[in-house]
Amino acid sequence: MFTSSDNKELFLGIDGGGSKCKAIVMNENNEILGTGISGPGNPLLGFEQATNSITEAAKLALKNAGLEAVALNTLNAGVGLAGVNLPALFDQMQAWQHPFKEMFLAHDLLIACLGAHHSSNGAVVITGTGSCGFSCIDEQELLIGGHGFPQGDKGSGAWFGLQATKQVLLSLDGLIAPSLMNNVLLEKLSCADAMGVVAVIADKKATFYAQLANLVFDAAEQGDAIALAIVDEGAEYINNLARTLLIKKPSRISMLGGLTPRLKSWLDPVIQAQLAEPLSSPEVGAVIFAKQKLAGQSEQQQTA
Amino acid sequence: MFTSSDNKELFLGIDGGGSKCKAIVMNENNEILGTGISGPGNPLLGFEQATNSITEAAKLALKNAGLEAVALNTLNAGVGLAGVNLPALFDQMQAWQHPFKEMFLAHDLLIACLGAHHSSNGAVVITGTGSCGFSCIDEQELLIGGHGFPQGDKGSGAWFGLQATKQVLLSLDGLIAPSLMNNVLLEKLSCADAMGVVAVIADKKATFYAQLANLVFDAAEQGDAIALAIVDEGAEYINNLARTLLIKKPSRISMLGGLTPRLKSWLDPVIQAQLAEPLSSPEVGAVIFAKQKLAGQSEQQQTA
Repeated sequence: MFTSSDNKELFLGIDGGGSKCKAIVMNENNEILGTGISGPGNPLLGFEQATNSITEAAKLALKNAGLEAVALNTLNAGVGLAGVNLPALFDQMQAWQHPFKEMFLAHDLLIACLGAHHSSNGAVVITGTGSCGFSCIDEQELLIGGHGFPQGDKGSGAWFGLQATKQVLLSLDGLIAPSLMNNVLLEKLSCADAMGVVAVIADKKATFYAQLANLVFDAAEQGDAIALAIVDEGAEYINNLARTLLIKKPSRISMLGGLTPRLKSWLDPVIQAQLAEPLSSPEVGAVIFAKQKLAGQSEQQQTA
Repeated sequence: MFTSSDNKELFLGIDGGGSKCKAIVMNENNEILGTGISGPGNPLLGFEQATNSITEAAKLALKNAGLEAVALNTLNAGVGLAGVNLPALFDQMQAWQHPFKEMFLAHDLLIACLGAHHSSNGAVVITGTGSCGFSCIDEQELLIGGHGFPQGDKGSGAWFGLQATKQVLLSLDGLIAPSLMNNVLLEKLSCADAMGVVAVIADKKATFYAQLANLVFDAAEQGDAIALAIVDEGAEYINNLARTLLIKKPSRISMLGGLTPRLKSWLDPVIQAQLAEPLSSPEVGAVIFAKQKLAGQSEQQQTA
C-alpha cells in the first residue's frame, strides 16, 4: 500500500469540497510535513475556482512544511474532489494542465474511505452539510444518497436545518403545536415573526441551513416532541444508509462529517456498536490513493 | 363597490407574480376591454424588472383593447403584486414614480380574494407553483403559509414535484419500495439513473419542480402507494389551511391556482363541498381594489 519506487518522493493529498479545499504534504514514510486550506474545490462550482483552490492549498501546505522552495512539479498529487463522480466533471478535471509531477484524481468519497480505513476495503457514512453512504470492496464502489440539497441529503446538517425551519414556520402559523425551536430560531435569525424568517431565508443554500442543525439537537435533548420527530427521521435514514452498506460486509465502517458528534448517539445502538473511529483524514486518504496508483504504474512497468 | 366619481374613467388591473405579470383594462361598467401579459412582476426579483413588466403589460392590454392612443396617465391602476406583503418591498413599490393617473398597491392575495368573491369578505386557498391561505374579513387579513420554496409552500406544485423527486431518488437507491414514478421521472428528465437526475436537478427552482407535480397525481390515480402518501400529505396540509380559514367564517371560500384541477378532488369532501367557484380573476380583483380606493377618496373629499 505505502510503497513507491523512489524513496525521496514528496506526496500531496487534496480533499476539495464545496466550501473549502484541504491539502497535506507527506513524505515517503507517511509523515505529515505540512497542511493548507483554501477556498471551494468542487469543480461543480466552477473549474477555475476549483483548480485555483487546489494550487493555492498545495502552496500553503508546502509553506506550512517549510518547503516553499519545493516546486509543485516535483509532487505526486492525490486529488479527491466532490463532484467528480459526475463523468463530465471527472473528464474536465482530468484534462486540467495541472502543475504537479503526476495527478491522480478520485472522488472525495473514495479518499475519505481510504483515509478512514487505510485500506481499499471499507465503508463510510458521511453527515456534514450533506449526507451519503459509500463503500469500496474489491474495487466495487457503492454510493447511496448524496443527491444534494434540498432534493436529497436526508439526515445531513442542511436537512436538519431545513426541517427545523419548516416546522417552526408551520408552528408559527398555528398549524402544528408550539416547539422549543420557535423562539430559538427567531432569535438566531433576529426575526420577530414568520414573515421575517421568510425574508431572511429566501434562496438560502445548504450551508446556511446546516448552521441551524444544532438547534434541532438542542431541542430534542430537552424533550421537544417536534425536534425529536425530526431527529428520529434523520437518524433512521442514516441507519438505513449504514445497514445497506453493511450488507456487503466491509472490513470496517466509520461515520464522518461535522454532524457526527451530534447525530451518532441517536443512531440505532446496533449500528453505533459497529462504527470504527476513522484512522486518518480524507487528505491522507488522497496520498494513500496516489501511492496506490504509483505502485500500480511501477508494477505495470516491471511487467512490461 | 363599483362606483367611481367619473363615468368615463378607464381602469387598469395588474396581477404581478414571480413568472408573469397580467394586465386587464376595464371600463366604468366593469366590461373587460383588453388584456396583456408580460414578464415577472414580483419586486422581490428586482424593482426594475417588476416596474418594466407592469408598464409593458399595461401597454399590451391597451393595444389589445384597440386603445393604443390612450395615455397611461389617464388610467386608474389597481396593482396587486406578489412580495409586497414584505413592508420594505411595499414601500419601495409605493415610492415608484409610476406612469398612471393613480396607483393603488395591494398584495396579490388581496386582489385574488377580491376577484374571486367580488367582496371584501372572503377567503382563498391558493395552490399553484406555491401555496398559501388568505382571508379578508372586516378588513382583517389573515395569511397562512406562503413561506416559499423549499422551506414552505407545502401542497404546492413545487412541493409535489420535489417530493416526487426525493422519493424516486430514495427508491432508485433501494432504500424504499419501487414506485410507478421512477421510470416516468427518469424519462421526463431524459436520465438513465439517480446520478443523471442529480445532475439535471442541481440548483433548480420552484418553477422547475412544479412541472413535475402531475407525475405524482398520475401515479396516485393508478394506486401507487408512494404517490398516494405524497398526495395525502399535501392534501391534508391544504385541508388544514382551509379549516383554519373557515374558523373565521368568511362569506365565501374558493380554491385558486394551477394545481386546483388535480388537487381539489383529493381534499376532504367536507372542505370540497364548501369551495365556491371564483367569480373573476385577480386582475379584475385589482380593478375592484382601485375602485374601492377611489370611492374611499371621493367620500373623504365629500366629508371634508
